[in-house]
Amino acid sequence: MQNTNLAPKPDSSNAKKQAALRALDFVESGMIVGLGSGSTATEWIHLLGEKVRNGQLKISAVASSEDSERLGRSYGIPFVSLDENPQVDLTVDGADEIAPGLALIKGGGGKLLREKIVASASRKMIIVADASKLVTQLGKFPLPIEVIPMARALVTRALEDLGFKTSLRHTKAGEIYITDEGNHILDCSGVMLSDPTTMGTKLDSIVGVVEHGLFLGRASLAIISDGSSIIEKTPTDRWN
Amino acid sequence: MQNTNLAPKPDSSNAKKQAALRALDFVESGMIVGLGSGSTATEWIHLLGEKVRNGQLKISAVASSEDSERLGRSYGIPFVSLDENPQVDLTVDGADEIAPGLALIKGGGGKLLREKIVASASRKMIIVADASKLVTQLGKFPLPIEVIPMARALVTRALEDLGFKTSLRHTKAGEIYITDEGNHILDCSGVMLSDPTTMGTKLDSIVGVVEHGLFLGRASLAIISDGSSIIEKTPTDRWN
Repeated sequence: MQNTNLAPKPDSSNAKKQAALRALDFVESGMIVGLGSGSTATEWIHLLGEKVRNGQLKISAVASSEDSERLGRSYGIPFVSLDENPQVDLTVDGADEIAPGLALIKGGGGKLLREKIVASASRKMIIVADASKLVTQLGKFPLPIEVIPMARALVTRALEDLGFKTSLRHTKAGEIYITDEGNHILDCSGVMLSDPTTMGTKLDSIVGVVEHGLFLGRASLAIISDGSSIIEKTPTDRWN
Repeated sequence: MQNTNLAPKPDSSNAKKQAALRALDFVESGMIVGLGSGSTATEWIHLLGEKVRNGQLKISAVASSEDSERLGRSYGIPFVSLDENPQVDLTVDGADEIAPGLALIKGGGGKLLREKIVASASRKMIIVADASKLVTQLGKFPLPIEVIPMARALVTRALEDLGFKTSLRHTKAGEIYITDEGNHILDCSGVMLSDPTTMGTKLDSIVGVVEHGLFLGRASLAIISDGSSIIEKTPTDRWN
């Protein structure tokens, strides 16, 4: 199949689009909707935006990144802040890994903090993803951890004590990646997370860690597509 | 006694100075020393700075606030970053409340995040304080919690669920107080902390909380003065 500029990765892109399309079924007019970040969430914002522009849906939104807000506004989606509306009805977002219990690793795109804030404000969170994101155990994808720049060396040492290899995230241009809140990201690999809850508590307690990419007990549904068919997973489903 | 501009609160200031003076005994040339923030830590930096300026001590320092670094530099104290030296030999800092076990509330001055980072990097932490800071249980002094601005309403709700009354910190000029890392501070009152460890873990787990003012298991000594005599408390001492 020949790639075009509009569809650079047809198979993965089809899967993402199919999953995003299914997530639209859960949106109703009047909702405050959380918009995730990353490639699959972006597909979803395009689809949602079309419905808003066509007048088929009347919603307002909270964004988890400046990119997502910009894209949403381009479709005329009105945005509210969490200060005005600390309760979001439904958030749709992607994930880097999805394990049983709908335990997630997120933050490959660098937006984990705001994504987690929006998720934390949401009554319901739906994950949209292609089938490559489904895993039996978290940890192959490096876990992103957002850190206060001043504490980076200190946090690195604490993470190494937990067994992680850490890598400071850089931009493609070779600069240190700076998050929307002005922090750095350490991508942490080398530890399979057999007990993500305990690991999450340990990471929370490290001084200088602003937030980590483990999203536990937040998603209520995962919509997974391989480009031809869809499967849906709930927190009680198991898979091997 | 008549106040002068140089000594606006003679009694409390004497106590602070006396405690700070005693802390000097623990500093040796060659150490990397953490400089705290706030009025008592400022007394200590003055005393330490004099010794460095006189050539009696050769140390380098890590600061927990821009104010402390400025003051230290005015005495010619050389500063290093935690990136270069993630291990600090000794930190001397103040506290807003000191309970048995040397459980502390800090952050009244708004510098809790950097103070905690420096404390976390330190082999030894000494608290200097006047006698009014000694309490049998933490919680009368409002607990400062540094929050991501976007998550403020959300965190406020979570703190209210824990029983706190929250107050957004403002400057004397009436503006929202912004921390060195660009965050807001919620001062949380109304809950006596009979189990600070459990409360600390709960606060750590709230998405949008960058850091809280509970310092637990960090201080190895508290030097307390009432202006005439000094008492010293270790983590195993009890008092009523």
